[in-house]
Amino acid sequence: MRGAVMHAPGDVRVQDREAPAIVDPTDAIIRVSATCVCGSDLWPYWGVDRFDGPMPMGHEYVGVVEEVGSEVRLIEPGQFVVGSFFASDNTCEICRAGYQSSCVNRVAMGALGTQAQVARIPLADGTLVATPEQPPEDLIPSLLAASDVLGTGWFGAVAAEVGPGKTVAIVGDGAVGLCAVLSARQLGAERIIAMSRHEPRQQLAREFGATDVIEQRGDEGVARVKELTDGLGAHGVVEAVGTQESMMQAIRSTRPGGHIGYVGVAHGVEVPGEELFWPQVHLHGGPAPVRQFLPELIDLIWTRQIDAGKVFDLVLPLDEAAEGYKAMDERRAIKVLLTP
Amino acid sequence: MRGAVMHAPGDVRVQDREAPAIVDPTDAIIRVSATCVCGSDLWPYWGVDRFDGPMPMGHEYVGVVEEVGSEVRLIEPGQFVVGSFFASDNTCEICRAGYQSSCVNRVAMGALGTQAQVARIPLADGTLVATPEQPPEDLIPSLLAASDVLGTGWFGAVAAEVGPGKTVAIVGDGAVGLCAVLSARQLGAERIIAMSRHEPRQQLAREFGATDVIEQRGDEGVARVKELTDGLGAHGVVEAVGTQESMMQAIRSTRPGGHIGYVGVAHGVEVPGEELFWPQVHLHGGPAPVRQFLPELIDLIWTRQIDAGKVFDLVLPLDEAAEGYKAMDERRAIKVLLTP
Repeated sequence: MRGAVMHAPGDVRVQDREAPAIVDPTDAIIRVSATCVCGSDLWPYWGVDRFDGPMPMGHEYVGVVEEVGSEVRLIEPGQFVVGSFFASDNTCEICRAGYQSSCVNRVAMGALGTQAQVARIPLADGTLVATPEQPPEDLIPSLLAASDVLGTGWFGAVAAEVGPGKTVAIVGDGAVGLCAVLSARQLGAERIIAMSRHEPRQQLAREFGATDVIEQRGDEGVARVKELTDGLGAHGVVEAVGTQESMMQAIRSTRPGGHIGYVGVAHGVEVPGEELFWPQVHLHGGPAPVRQFLPELIDLIWTRQIDAGKVFDLVLPLDEAAEGYKAMDERRAIKVLLTP
Repeated sequence: MRGAVMHAPGDVRVQDREAPAIVDPTDAIIRVSATCVCGSDLWPYWGVDRFDGPMPMGHEYVGVVEEVGSEVRLIEPGQFVVGSFFASDNTCEICRAGYQSSCVNRVAMGALGTQAQVARIPLADGTLVATPEQPPEDLIPSLLAASDVLGTGWFGAVAAEVGPGKTVAIVGDGAVGLCAVLSARQLGAERIIAMSRHEPRQQLAREFGATDVIEQRGDEGVARVKELTDGLGAHGVVEAVGTQESMMQAIRSTRPGGHIGYVGVAHGVEVPGEELFWPQVHLHGGPAPVRQFLPELIDLIWTRQIDAGKVFDLVLPLDEAAEGYKAMDERRAIKVLLTP
């Protein structure tokens, strides 16, 4: 089968890889209908993450089940399924508390590489959620978004305690930030402030429900949020970048007692204790427990209440994955969908 | 009147100070019945905080109202009152959300100095809570504890989302940490792990409700908490020290999805973003909004359900404040009560 492999920072190639097969009796094998390039795939692409040699890429996926292991009970061949970037048993104490991405038996899907024609999904019963039936073609992008960026943006909004009557600010205009805007609207936020200086992303943010767009960053961006919130700061802020600047911008844009949903994968961030202590904010985040939200998100997509698939503004055949990485690196595309 | 003044790190003197008088029409003047030395008073005593010259000391107080300004409506001369370390209007949007210590009009009581015979209390109606009547002598220590250490320990436990069925660990065995133990029991925690290597403090922790005591610190302390919690970590952890080591111990002792109540005043703490992101913990804290809890705490004390006053293991006349600082600095005393 064909699959994407990163050979060095900046060097992604689609090549023949051995087709995966059942390893554990709790596995499923799926034929991938659609996969995509994640903002977090750019960290190794930029050489920021440690690089230990060629590695298969991708951790987002939707597809049709081809085969299941002998202990799989809930998932069946032929089903169209959505899963997330950590496989989870969905039965341990941590999963039951809603933190499937920290499941005691979790498996990182990135290590298996879903930018491929076929993928092995460990812990299939706990990981995969089937759609009611085979989806119409036009819903596939949104279902794929649920696999990571929508689920992550949703978690960011939930962690920021977005709700009716609340003002929320979103730091980051990547696919996750934009999905956080959409999530905030769906969760009933009264005012949604998107922080973006890129015109096409501003436009999608407004389409997803942003009531205000702020172009300033850093202290100026903070000052603008304060201006819009009686000098107090937002009730909730979603941090969807992962840099020192974005993190400090998020903390300083939040009012005392407010909530920060922190979903940008941290790179080089150091938060001074005083900035956690004196502002009296709540901070919560991390790798989103997408599995917790999948049933609800699939339902919202299936009933066409949300159209998160709009974050995919470039669709390429899997074989052109290298061009997809390049387009995202150069910010020519918000998010790239790959068809195997 | 007599009042404590710090002239240099390590140099506290009780001297004649000008008696405070009404400045703003929202002020009250109280005759201080009891005051005390705070763990946070030791930071300038040690020369860790910036020192800009002689300063009046103290921010904890209970006493009898002598006079009120022309706009004070709720507080009357003759009442016995408890207040906290930030004066607050208790009417702004931040106060109404329960974060009185970040009131938009807050005044730091430390700048006024309550280790004195008489104190001016700004925003008296919002700041002070009167007891039902003049308290019996033996309740005064607990009422004084409510002014800061009990209110702060309580906030730590609330921020750590302590409740029935939960396991909570407390990092720090000072008066705040011990009051967090007492608070955790009052809030219904199932298992309360106190981290302490000082025998008298361990004993008080057990008396206050600790079910387990761990003497190890750092990674060893974390490992012991994990051993007691099926390898997962505590549901909630109260950080009541404010150093890098204690903060990391708190984060690493918490299970994914768990809550950290962070009430040790941060000094030299730098939290790597990865340690906030990957563990998926909730972090909340800061200067405790004690005013929010005062009515409930006063009621618990008045009805003799809690006896937080036990943290005072040394009582001295105000004139001997210097000895009180010394005793706390040398850890000969947990907390020192001063009688003006």
